[in-house]
Amino acid sequence: MILKNNERLDDLQFNNLKIIQNSQLYSFTSDAVALANFAKVHKDGRVVDLCSGNGVIGILVNAKNNPAKTFLVEIQQNLAEMSQRSVQYNGIDNIEIVNSCLQDVHKLIGDNFDVVVCNPPYKQLTNNGLINESESIAIARHEIKVTLEEIIAESAKLLKFGGQLYLVNKDERLTDIILLCTKYCLEPKELVILPSSKGANIIMLRAKKGGRRGIKITLK
Amino acid sequence: MILKNNERLDDLQFNNLKIIQNSQLYSFTSDAVALANFAKVHKDGRVVDLCSGNGVIGILVNAKNNPAKTFLVEIQQNLAEMSQRSVQYNGIDNIEIVNSCLQDVHKLIGDNFDVVVCNPPYKQLTNNGLINESESIAIARHEIKVTLEEIIAESAKLLKFGGQLYLVNKDERLTDIILLCTKYCLEPKELVILPSSKGANIIMLRAKKGGRRGIKITLK
Repeated sequence: MILKNNERLDDLQFNNLKIIQNSQLYSFTSDAVALANFAKVHKDGRVVDLCSGNGVIGILVNAKNNPAKTFLVEIQQNLAEMSQRSVQYNGIDNIEIVNSCLQDVHKLIGDNFDVVVCNPPYKQLTNNGLINESESIAIARHEIKVTLEEIIAESAKLLKFGGQLYLVNKDERLTDIILLCTKYCLEPKELVILPSSKGANIIMLRAKKGGRRGIKITLK
Repeated sequence: MILKNNERLDDLQFNNLKIIQNSQLYSFTSDAVALANFAKVHKDGRVVDLCSGNGVIGILVNAKNNPAKTFLVEIQQNLAEMSQRSVQYNGIDNIEIVNSCLQDVHKLIGDNFDVVVCNPPYKQLTNNGLINESESIAIARHEIKVTLEEIIAESAKLLKFGGQLYLVNKDERLTDIILLCTKYCLEPKELVILPSSKGANIIMLRAKKGGRRGIKITLK
């Protein structure tokens, strides 16, 4: 395999897996690795990674849990194509890349999934804010192509009853996340706090479709 | 002052304040002290402590912030009377005890308050559960006389626009708390996690009447 301009091969520190990253595009952060370690799926399970980017979360969840099938859904063609090459490089045969917007993606890939994982754009669009980044990085970081509500609504459509959504975000979005999850019958079951030295803590939520009310908080 | 049967005088570890507690009634826990330290009110402010019990939170918030006036609202006559004697013993002249249910207590004490503090009964009633406690302790621990929704609804009536509710509870109620606060226009602004060795963490929430969406998580 030949790396393209600005690309490098990074080690995922698990099972000798590698991932292609591009210095001009969005690269994954420790939040992605934390979410991949948080998500659990059984061996017959089917997984969707929404906003999959370069594929890091989907590839790690797939490798750590060995489910039947994992779909990576990414709207940006350049990231989707790069993740396709990472999957090929690692010789993975149960991951499928879907280069599509995530709204209504269940019409493409079906429903009844066991697990949805998502590391979405954290930043809401504001009226006054110019975004001082390349278009590709801006789409990964800001709610330009998709909102949190669209992600949670689509997750509810993708999941089977009892299926689990694993979501990461900044702590400031906790209220929105809980309101939206309950709106779409995804009951928040576990909240993990990842303390950050930068002020805003990162949170990870597990929500269960049709679950009973009652949540547990865990500190990492 | 003469202590009654089963009563003792405990030191509140602040400004030489004492509090009467009764071994047969509900005694305060470290959650109450944590909530009293969390709540802030300015010197001209007016405070209500809902479910005030023996008065520990209201007495401490009043002493630490020196507001214009603090009301302690407690439904149980024996606890309200005991807190009245603690207030007298400490020579406090700006605390008023209200021995009343809290539903519609704004009709007794008015509204436009700056701060409401509340350490409510944590436990929801279940269909199968016999409560194996004295009636007085059961009322303090279980939602027998008041529900979380009634507390939050009444807090919204008591507070002025911009006023703050400070609430403590178990982590498992977080979803209910956020749903109910936003239902009654009390916007969750700060969530404090108090890790517990007993499994369930304790959470404290500050919610602002009419506040803007966006919450911060703090670990203690």
